[in-house]
Amino acid sequence: MRDVSIIGIGQTPVGEHWERSLRHLAYDALKAALLDANMERADALYVGNMLSGEISGQAHLGALIADFAGLRGIEAVKIEAACASAAAAFRQAYIAVASGLQDVVIALGVEKMTDDVGSKLTAGLASAADADYEVIHGISFVALNALIMQRYMYEYNVGREDFANFAITAHANGAGNPNARFQEPISKEAFLKSGVVASPIGLLDASPMADGAAAVILCPSEQAREFTDNAIRVAGSAMATDSLSVHDRRDPLWLQAAEDSARKAYRQAGVGPQNIDFFELHDAFTIMAALSLEAAGFAERGRGTWLARDGAITRDGKIPIATRGGLKARGHPVGATGLYQIVEAVQQLRGEAGANQIPNARVGMTQNIGGSGATIATHIFERLN
Amino acid sequence: MRDVSIIGIGQTPVGEHWERSLRHLAYDALKAALLDANMERADALYVGNMLSGEISGQAHLGALIADFAGLRGIEAVKIEAACASAAAAFRQAYIAVASGLQDVVIALGVEKMTDDVGSKLTAGLASAADADYEVIHGISFVALNALIMQRYMYEYNVGREDFANFAITAHANGAGNPNARFQEPISKEAFLKSGVVASPIGLLDASPMADGAAAVILCPSEQAREFTDNAIRVAGSAMATDSLSVHDRRDPLWLQAAEDSARKAYRQAGVGPQNIDFFELHDAFTIMAALSLEAAGFAERGRGTWLARDGAITRDGKIPIATRGGLKARGHPVGATGLYQIVEAVQQLRGEAGANQIPNARVGMTQNIGGSGATIATHIFERLN
Repeated sequence: MRDVSIIGIGQTPVGEHWERSLRHLAYDALKAALLDANMERADALYVGNMLSGEISGQAHLGALIADFAGLRGIEAVKIEAACASAAAAFRQAYIAVASGLQDVVIALGVEKMTDDVGSKLTAGLASAADADYEVIHGISFVALNALIMQRYMYEYNVGREDFANFAITAHANGAGNPNARFQEPISKEAFLKSGVVASPIGLLDASPMADGAAAVILCPSEQAREFTDNAIRVAGSAMATDSLSVHDRRDPLWLQAAEDSARKAYRQAGVGPQNIDFFELHDAFTIMAALSLEAAGFAERGRGTWLARDGAITRDGKIPIATRGGLKARGHPVGATGLYQIVEAVQQLRGEAGANQIPNARVGMTQNIGGSGATIATHIFERLN
Repeated sequence: MRDVSIIGIGQTPVGEHWERSLRHLAYDALKAALLDANMERADALYVGNMLSGEISGQAHLGALIADFAGLRGIEAVKIEAACASAAAAFRQAYIAVASGLQDVVIALGVEKMTDDVGSKLTAGLASAADADYEVIHGISFVALNALIMQRYMYEYNVGREDFANFAITAHANGAGNPNARFQEPISKEAFLKSGVVASPIGLLDASPMADGAAAVILCPSEQAREFTDNAIRVAGSAMATDSLSVHDRRDPLWLQAAEDSARKAYRQAGVGPQNIDFFELHDAFTIMAALSLEAAGFAERGRGTWLARDGAITRDGKIPIATRGGLKARGHPVGATGLYQIVEAVQQLRGEAGANQIPNARVGMTQNIGGSGATIATHIFERLN
C-alpha cells in the first residue's frame, strides 16, 4: 500500500445557501480544492452525501458533480453512511490512492438541507436510525440522543450545566472561523436558558442543520512534493460499525465503533491520545462530544464532561476540540461534515487556521459519527515539514 | 496491487417479497454467499442500493446489514450510483482487496421496490436523471429511454420489431433460471402486441421492477485456493461517467462511459470483444441492449439490433447475452442488479448455470448502467482452472 497525503482543500461557508443549488455548492468546494492543489484534473471522485434523494429528488451525485465540475468521464460514486458519509467518502478515496489504482482523487462532502426544513428533513435525518425498530415508535434523531444524554446524566451523576463548556468552547472558536454558520460567542447563562428541544437536550446542546460542501485532493505522498510544499500526510485511517439501534448495544453509553476505529487509527499512525494536538470530534449534540472523548481515550468512562469543566478542550488546553467551531458552531451539513473536519484539520496542520490556530500543531485527529454511533470513521493527520 | 478473485456467491429469487424486509433480503443473499465460500467472517461490507431512503425511510444500510448478518463492528458502507449501484459497490470491494487493506470483503446489492409501486417509486427512479434539467420538465425515466429509442430508430432506420429478439432471448433464458422473476418464454407476436408504455417502448421492451439481493465474497487470488477450488478471477474492472442529462451529450446514441469502461477493462484483462464468451449487459430497455453491444465493441454503430436479428445473442450464438434472463426476465431490482449480473457470470464460469449453461465458458463480461448511461461499470471475469 502506498502512503497518502492531502495536497488541496476547499470549502463553502456553512449556512443557508438559497441562491446556490446542490451542484453549485459541490462545484465551489471542489474547484477551490483543485485550485489549492494547483491541479486541473483528477482520476476519481468520491462524493459523501446523505439526503440528496430525499430532499432534492436527486440521486446519482457522482456523475452529476463530476460532469458539472468539468471532469466528465472520470470514475465517480456516492458514499453514504448517514452523518458519517463524508469521512466514509474520504476513506474510499484514501483506499483508492493507497491501492495504487488512482493517483489524484477528490473526496467531497455536500449537503443541501435548507430547501426543506419540514417533515422531509426530520424524516430524512431519522433514516440514520433503525426504521423498523426505533423510528416506527415515533422517535426522532434528537430524541434518541436525548435518551442517551438522560441515561448518561443518571449513571454518572452529572448535570446539564456540566455540558455547557462544549457549546461555549465551540461558539468561541466559531467566532474565529469565517466559514462557520455561527460566529458569535455564547454565555453560560444563554446555554442554561436555551429552550428544551428534547429533554434534557436544549437548543444550545444541538448543532444546526445547514447547507455546505467541503473537499480535499489526495495523492501518493511520494508525488505530493511535486505539487506542493505543505502536503499533510494521512497517518491513520479506520472505520468501524456498531448496531444501528441503540437498544441493541450492551452499553448505550459507550461508542464501541469510536473505540475500535480510534484504536486502529492510533496503531497505524504509531501514536496514542497523548500525541494528538487537537481533536475535531462529532459534537452533533454535547453528549456526543463527551462520549467521543471517552471512547477515543481522552477521558475515563463517565468523565468526558470533566475535560470541558477543567478547560482542557479550549485552544490552549490539553486536548483542544472543535477548533473551528465544530458541528455546534461551524454547523452540521450532515453528509458534508466529515470533510469539513478534515479540511479544518489540514488548516491547523498547515498553520492556516487564523485566529483559531493551535500553536505548533503537528498531529491532528478527526472523528465523524453516523447515526447514534453506528458508523464511526477516525482519521489521524500529520504535518510533514 | 493484488490480484482478486470471487470465492462465494449468493442471491435471493427476484420478485415481490412482501414477507421479507430489506434487511432480511440482504441477509439471505449475504449468508448464502458466506456459506458458499465456507466463511464466517469478513473484513468489510460494501452495500449497493439506490432507493432505501426514498422507499423504506432507511439510510445507513452498511451498519444495519453488517449487524443483522452477525458481522457487527466490521467496516461497512453504502455505495450509490443509481442503477449501477451494485457494480459500483463491487468495484469498491475489489479496490479494497486489491489495495492490500482487507482480505475478505463482501459486495452486496439489495433493493426493495414493491413496498411502494406508486409515486414514490416513479419519483425515486427519476432521481437517476438530472432533477434540475430533465425531471423538472415532467419526464420519467422510461420516457427518457423512449426518446433515445425513437431517435435511434430514426437515425438508423430500424423498426420496433428489430428489438424483439432482445426480449424474446431474455425470456427464453429466464425460463431456465429458478431465481428469475419471469420464467415463461414470450413470442414475437406477444412482443409486438404488448401495450405501449412510452412510445416506442412497449411493456415487453422494459424490465420489471422487483425486490432482490445478490452478494459475492472477494479475496486475494493467492489466498483463494485455501478456501475453494472454483475461484473466479476478476480479470478487469473499470468504471466511467458521462453527463447525467442526455441532451448534454454530443451523441445521445452513444454510451461513451460504456466504451471507456469496456476499453479499460479489456486492457486490464488483456482481451478484446472476440475473447468474451458471454456478456451480461444492462437490458433495462431493449434500446439499452443495442447501445451496450455497440459501445462495448460487439457491433458497429447503429447495428446492435442486427446481432439480435441474426441470432448472435442466444446461448449458442456468437455473443450470448442475458444468459440467465437479464434485466428483462430475471428482473431489475435497481441497486442490486449489478451484483445479480456478477453472480450469474460466476455461475456460468463455474459451470453451474444449469439449463442456461454456456458450454466451456472461460471469460465473461458484465456491464451495469446507471441512469441513461451516466455511470457505467464494466467487469471481466475469468475461470482459473
